[in-house]
Amino acid sequence: MALIVQKFGGTSVADVDRIRNVAARVKVSHDAGNQVVVVVSARSGVTNELVGRAKALNPKPDEREMDMLLSVGEQETIALTAMALHALGVPAVSRTGREAGILTDPVHTRARITRISGGDIREQLESGKVVILAGFQGHSPDGQITTLGRGGSDLSAIAIAAALQADLCQICTDVDGVYTADPRIVPTARKLDEIAYEEMLELASSGSKVMQNRAVEFARKFNVVFEVRSSFNNNPGTIVKEEVASMEDVVVSGVALDKNQARIVVSELPDQPGTAARLFQSIANAGVSVDMIVQNIGRDGKANMTFTVPRDDVSRAQEGIASAFAASDGVLFESSDIAKVSVVGVGMRSHSGVAATLFDALAAAKVNIQLVSTSEIKISVGINPEDAEEATRIVHSAFQLDTASESS
Amino acid sequence: MALIVQKFGGTSVADVDRIRNVAARVKVSHDAGNQVVVVVSARSGVTNELVGRAKALNPKPDEREMDMLLSVGEQETIALTAMALHALGVPAVSRTGREAGILTDPVHTRARITRISGGDIREQLESGKVVILAGFQGHSPDGQITTLGRGGSDLSAIAIAAALQADLCQICTDVDGVYTADPRIVPTARKLDEIAYEEMLELASSGSKVMQNRAVEFARKFNVVFEVRSSFNNNPGTIVKEEVASMEDVVVSGVALDKNQARIVVSELPDQPGTAARLFQSIANAGVSVDMIVQNIGRDGKANMTFTVPRDDVSRAQEGIASAFAASDGVLFESSDIAKVSVVGVGMRSHSGVAATLFDALAAAKVNIQLVSTSEIKISVGINPEDAEEATRIVHSAFQLDTASESS
Repeated sequence: MALIVQKFGGTSVADVDRIRNVAARVKVSHDAGNQVVVVVSARSGVTNELVGRAKALNPKPDEREMDMLLSVGEQETIALTAMALHALGVPAVSRTGREAGILTDPVHTRARITRISGGDIREQLESGKVVILAGFQGHSPDGQITTLGRGGSDLSAIAIAAALQADLCQICTDVDGVYTADPRIVPTARKLDEIAYEEMLELASSGSKVMQNRAVEFARKFNVVFEVRSSFNNNPGTIVKEEVASMEDVVVSGVALDKNQARIVVSELPDQPGTAARLFQSIANAGVSVDMIVQNIGRDGKANMTFTVPRDDVSRAQEGIASAFAASDGVLFESSDIAKVSVVGVGMRSHSGVAATLFDALAAAKVNIQLVSTSEIKISVGINPEDAEEATRIVHSAFQLDTASESS
Repeated sequence: MALIVQKFGGTSVADVDRIRNVAARVKVSHDAGNQVVVVVSARSGVTNELVGRAKALNPKPDEREMDMLLSVGEQETIALTAMALHALGVPAVSRTGREAGILTDPVHTRARITRISGGDIREQLESGKVVILAGFQGHSPDGQITTLGRGGSDLSAIAIAAALQADLCQICTDVDGVYTADPRIVPTARKLDEIAYEEMLELASSGSKVMQNRAVEFARKFNVVFEVRSSFNNNPGTIVKEEVASMEDVVVSGVALDKNQARIVVSELPDQPGTAARLFQSIANAGVSVDMIVQNIGRDGKANMTFTVPRDDVSRAQEGIASAFAASDGVLFESSDIAKVSVVGVGMRSHSGVAATLFDALAAAKVNIQLVSTSEIKISVGINPEDAEEATRIVHSAFQLDTASESS
């Protein structure tokens, strides 16, 4: 007998048929003698409808009231899921975030979990009941309803698994697991049996988002091993866990593609100490995150700086920069679309030659590299968006990630 | 400065435009220097949608989970109403039933209020905020969400008005107030300026339902004076309060028509002690409420019994009776549709001749009376449904309730 946390996202509980399907899956786990905590999101679409009504009434809705509003989505789902389990003869009881003692800080709409008492969840499990917990929500020290922000239900699942010291935490979603690349782009992509937290985080921030990073970071912090798997079939998924020695044998675990980047070149910058700080501070003040950065060598007392930002943020970045330099400084700004291809793998720590393999493969395919950035377990290149999908497939092959390579 | 409780039902908060309208009305009361508590229902249709999903998943949904589910309807509305008030520059904060300390017994889906602490509502009002309270919901001593059953939001409003010793409680709805008769049937019907609790109760149970009786009974018990008025205009409504001496001058306050009654005749009953008890116990066991009852004189050792029940309950009543008598008893059962016309007025206590006036008016119109029943402040007659609307108009005139009579 094990204690299992199973999380189902919005598309998995979108309507009564899918909720019935979730209940049937939970029943299998319960009938096998396990203690089961089910974490559910709002039915897909509900949160958007609620936000739509809120914005129609108030363009800047109060965040405390926003949490009061949004928390109803999950509260509906937990009650319906309990009823669906009852219909299958499975004893079950629902719990809101407050009832489960999920304490957060008081920062409405993006609260951070500070402590989890679990409420009476253990007693309910001991008595043989499935407990259905509302994801995404908690309560602040003064009793206000709070919500955890994007990806909050994944975070709820990981957190309750940590608090209850669950044996298994399954994040059931609309994909089968974590793949070596996006199968829509690389048909030969393979599902990974396991992946390290860090790789998962790097893949997500490189464009292969299966889960929000906050949940993965929480899992890493509390060492919660979890599995990403499908809500709609029984295939084993991908186990996400702490890096283990055997993972080093695999140099690259996955290839990620982010097509929504823009390259910004700021030129004619005064080549003096503090200019870069002033530039990037102005962009940060505009609320824009910068990714890859290259500083070109200065000439004639002028420098230029190349970096990437999410494509939607280009005009905000430009406004930020314009505010930081006087017109008389003569700073020039240009931007162009760019795609970022990243290879990720904890094995890079102990293997050299990854960059060489990557550059060779792209050179052979005549793909021009515009920017490069590296971290301990990732190498990213910025390339022309037109080359992006083909380049992803080439890189995927170059690191022997294709299905066909698996048996070799 | 006064403390005002304003309740808005589901049709008054059906969509964002109507919620905006409610906010504008509340702003007027707040700007006039009043402390305002707003009680709202779920947007109309929401509760039915939730019930629909519940029943699709489970024909007999668990009542505790039903309360978890249904309470989201009001929680959505309080948050949206707060946001709408903020957009108008009115400070406002929402409170769930639990947050307002509305304690109930633990009988899910039809809980009774046992105590109201009010939570921090007084402090919020003192600080100048409008408080928006979720109607229909409370919490049981062990912290479970409970709901108050049909008409629960009216009850919430009356109860919080009692707890806060409000100066005024306005039940804002889709009618202008309480009328002497249904204006769709009696075009000359007048809106009453005031009415006694008891009259309101009798009118409701006679087919003129503006509010559920539970809320009116609660108001009577705690002597909460309230006003029934429109959500959509500023006309004064009808004040509902304890009977006062001046009310006795008006013999009849209103005429109610209930077209959904059926008359049941049970004949060939053994004319012996205990038969009536056995008959009506069998009907009660079937969950059917009996209204008017006439026992005919026995003959040849047989009796017959005539009574009325809601039309939808005829077959259940028949099944109940069939289960209580053996086939060999030879009891006969027949039913026919009937309409009930009732005249109601606390003035009847001190005026005689009401029955005579009623019977005279119906006789002059050649309306045949099939059953009669009376209470201290009501006389009801059962008549052919085809005569019902005309009879209602005749009776309304006979007691000088028409608009034209007002100035006479």
